[in-house]
Amino acid sequence: MSLADRIRNPELQSRIMSAEAAAALIPAGANVGMSGFTGAGYPKALPQALARRIEALHAAGDPFRISVWTGASTAPELDGALAKVDGIEMRLPFQSDPVCRQKINAGEMHFTDIHLSHVAQHAWFGFLGHLDVAVVEVTGILPDGRLIPSMAVGNNKTWLDLADKVILEVNTLQPTQLEGMHDIYYGTALPPHRKPIPLVHPNDRIGEPYLHCDPAKIVAIVGTHQSDRNSGFAAPDDNSQRIAGHIIEFLQHEVKQGRLPASLLPLQSGVGNVANAVLAGLNDGPFSGLTGFTEVLQDGMLDLLRSGKMESASSTAISLSPAALADFTANIDFYRQRIVLRPQEISNHPELVRRLGIIAMNAMIEADIYGNVNSTHTMGSSMMNGIGGSGDFARNGYLSFFVTPSLAKGGTISCIVPMVSHVDHTEHDVQIIVTEQGLADLRGLSPRQRAKLIIEQCAHPDYRDALCDYTERAWRDGPGRHTPHLLDEALSWHSRYLRTGHM
Amino acid sequence: MSLADRIRNPELQSRIMSAEAAAALIPAGANVGMSGFTGAGYPKALPQALARRIEALHAAGDPFRISVWTGASTAPELDGALAKVDGIEMRLPFQSDPVCRQKINAGEMHFTDIHLSHVAQHAWFGFLGHLDVAVVEVTGILPDGRLIPSMAVGNNKTWLDLADKVILEVNTLQPTQLEGMHDIYYGTALPPHRKPIPLVHPNDRIGEPYLHCDPAKIVAIVGTHQSDRNSGFAAPDDNSQRIAGHIIEFLQHEVKQGRLPASLLPLQSGVGNVANAVLAGLNDGPFSGLTGFTEVLQDGMLDLLRSGKMESASSTAISLSPAALADFTANIDFYRQRIVLRPQEISNHPELVRRLGIIAMNAMIEADIYGNVNSTHTMGSSMMNGIGGSGDFARNGYLSFFVTPSLAKGGTISCIVPMVSHVDHTEHDVQIIVTEQGLADLRGLSPRQRAKLIIEQCAHPDYRDALCDYTERAWRDGPGRHTPHLLDEALSWHSRYLRTGHM
Repeated sequence: MSLADRIRNPELQSRIMSAEAAAALIPAGANVGMSGFTGAGYPKALPQALARRIEALHAAGDPFRISVWTGASTAPELDGALAKVDGIEMRLPFQSDPVCRQKINAGEMHFTDIHLSHVAQHAWFGFLGHLDVAVVEVTGILPDGRLIPSMAVGNNKTWLDLADKVILEVNTLQPTQLEGMHDIYYGTALPPHRKPIPLVHPNDRIGEPYLHCDPAKIVAIVGTHQSDRNSGFAAPDDNSQRIAGHIIEFLQHEVKQGRLPASLLPLQSGVGNVANAVLAGLNDGPFSGLTGFTEVLQDGMLDLLRSGKMESASSTAISLSPAALADFTANIDFYRQRIVLRPQEISNHPELVRRLGIIAMNAMIEADIYGNVNSTHTMGSSMMNGIGGSGDFARNGYLSFFVTPSLAKGGTISCIVPMVSHVDHTEHDVQIIVTEQGLADLRGLSPRQRAKLIIEQCAHPDYRDALCDYTERAWRDGPGRHTPHLLDEALSWHSRYLRTGHM
Repeated sequence: MSLADRIRNPELQSRIMSAEAAAALIPAGANVGMSGFTGAGYPKALPQALARRIEALHAAGDPFRISVWTGASTAPELDGALAKVDGIEMRLPFQSDPVCRQKINAGEMHFTDIHLSHVAQHAWFGFLGHLDVAVVEVTGILPDGRLIPSMAVGNNKTWLDLADKVILEVNTLQPTQLEGMHDIYYGTALPPHRKPIPLVHPNDRIGEPYLHCDPAKIVAIVGTHQSDRNSGFAAPDDNSQRIAGHIIEFLQHEVKQGRLPASLLPLQSGVGNVANAVLAGLNDGPFSGLTGFTEVLQDGMLDLLRSGKMESASSTAISLSPAALADFTANIDFYRQRIVLRPQEISNHPELVRRLGIIAMNAMIEADIYGNVNSTHTMGSSMMNGIGGSGDFARNGYLSFFVTPSLAKGGTISCIVPMVSHVDHTEHDVQIIVTEQGLADLRGLSPRQRAKLIIEQCAHPDYRDALCDYTERAWRDGPGRHTPHLLDEALSWHSRYLRTGHM
């Protein structure tokens, strides 16, 4: 279907222009809210045209930077292109682009790392400043001006509502049959006018399938015909399969103990290969009648839907490998009956995560012996991607798993350390730690009990003795025995790694 | 009113016995859920009788310990008495007793520190083990067996529902006119059967004024006539008044900017002298039509109700100084119209805290330059009291303040440090840090921007240069510039304090 066919509102057809012309409408210093969540549904032509404009301006000695707000991570065409030309002053709330990350960690770009459920409301509250421009990918425009969302909803509703000017990118490569898959909740309000969110089952529809936007604000419409990032997944390796095995065994045990229903509770799964392996494991596992309530639907969950093990899935984005995307597109009518795409303030809402009793499974960088988790920083200082929705789900879920292989960087790094170099999830929010070595069920335990279990169950044997030695000496010589630590040594594993290349 | 007059159910009258006889019904190794929240509404006679029994057993060489679950802190008659005789194996979720704290930090007692909103559901989920006995203070029993709660609700509903055996302590000193002040919500359920909690205003009543308990489970009723802890407050000192001044000035600014309604949003205030001073400051301040939605109602909030500045307050406990208690008792009909006491899973519920848009104000032990907050540990290892409800409110509120004087221990400790020695509230959950020096508004800022502001606004001048020096060297020499740290030095301030008595 052509660009003109996708824009069924005649007045808006007149605002079609080139990406270059649209990019020229964005002023220096603007706060720009862009679509995009986990490499899905981000604008593609406009950011690249803007990057070219910025590059030319910088070459002419003119400063030009913007702040970029999104749903979550985007792709090289957005984060990469703008970061490469030093076009980003401040970025929020999550990114995973190598160039962007390099600039952040070189101190050349500000990055504000925010719980994904907080972003929309903080924008509404006015805490992030004024939103000047929204740049949002859609799959089409209805005759009455309503917008058909794309592969991610993210914060698009909020950006469209708040921005002074709106630039739409209509992506003719995204399937038109996405229409009807979305559920945009327009019942939010500012305190003190908020009401209960009327969602009691993961696939309840509480909104409408379209985004609204005041046509008077739409200053440009750009056509594009480019695919999403569509990163592939590594085939599950031994470690991932072992982690998946530990989780599935634990869930079976919990069902047997009467602490979980036989069809479990709605699953949330973070991004990445390990998470994908866990879902693959569930597909071969004993559970059926599953549901998903997550922020991004990846290959593993699509497989579960296709196999019938999972009945429905709710998320804010669909981020697939090329092969999975082909299946999704070919069978989109099947998936539309089983998938609901929501704004991320709803997909990740604490109210809903707690009400539904989500089983939260998120990857981490490292955990310490007392169960504090670092999801974001390497060696205490450098940002990896951001906290994403892990806090929304871990704090409010029924069960919160954090998973990682026990070793990183060829065994030079232990992912279980005396003290994490940065804390994103405190001991209060971390219930179950899983590595390929085993699973530590920390529920109801004191710090000393947790340490024993984490070292025994999760640490790699190469580092286990050293961790035991630390805890014994901290018990003997530390300043207190509730959470025994030797403060001169607590971060020495990281320091040693920085100094010698080995923890 | 006599004990017999307070127990209006004839069958239950027959179960009145001495505290000693009731204490004999608790088996060794039991998990015991006791009432009590911030020194209010805890059982008084039974725990002391149990402590005497344990002391005698220990003297005879018989081991005897129990695990004690409560709402929050209790008092010397409960935590103190049982800890003193080494009668507690494990304690959750919050305590503030000196003897209890000493045992925890000597490694002689396990302590599990849990968000207060999580406790009831974790007990229901079966995550904490089986609850053997409930020991709950009430003010009376209706003819049909329903229970009139006391000065705190805490987790009493859950303990009464879950325990095999129930021991009631009827405290004839608590005012009978408390009847009708409570709102016990019986609409909770386990996932996947949970429904929205139908509360949209701080003083909505969504439950009933009484606790239910299967009479068959009530194995003993003990009479007592003892007052609650009723700790006094220090008169607001200079530092507290300055902190209060900064907060009030900030709130006025936010109203002016249109980011808060003129009557603000519901206030949550942590315990202690500084929190009390902030409320005192509000009583002299420009705001009216205030509401409270907090976990414990202390003197400051009572003053606001009496003055008419505050229209209503919701909490799970009332914890007053002797003078304020006299006023409360004398004017209890006035206060009953303005105060609602709820279970702590409701008073602190993330769903409600976020919906209502709470202004959360909590004390802390220390903050670091990047805005991570330590609420629980001294020098990384020793437990002070516990996280309490600070996480429930800070994560989900509209605004989250963390306050402390900039110095502790006569200036030998800086409460702003390079890296906190324990993290309870991460950079993602901390919006505004206030000391007597000033206020740092961290909303929307990157770590480097936060550091600049926290050092400039909040650190004491005696430590400011050293903090600047650290950040400059960390920027220059650290492993990354997103959150610049020198890992060999990050905790050196605490180490130095332990070594030399001065940071």
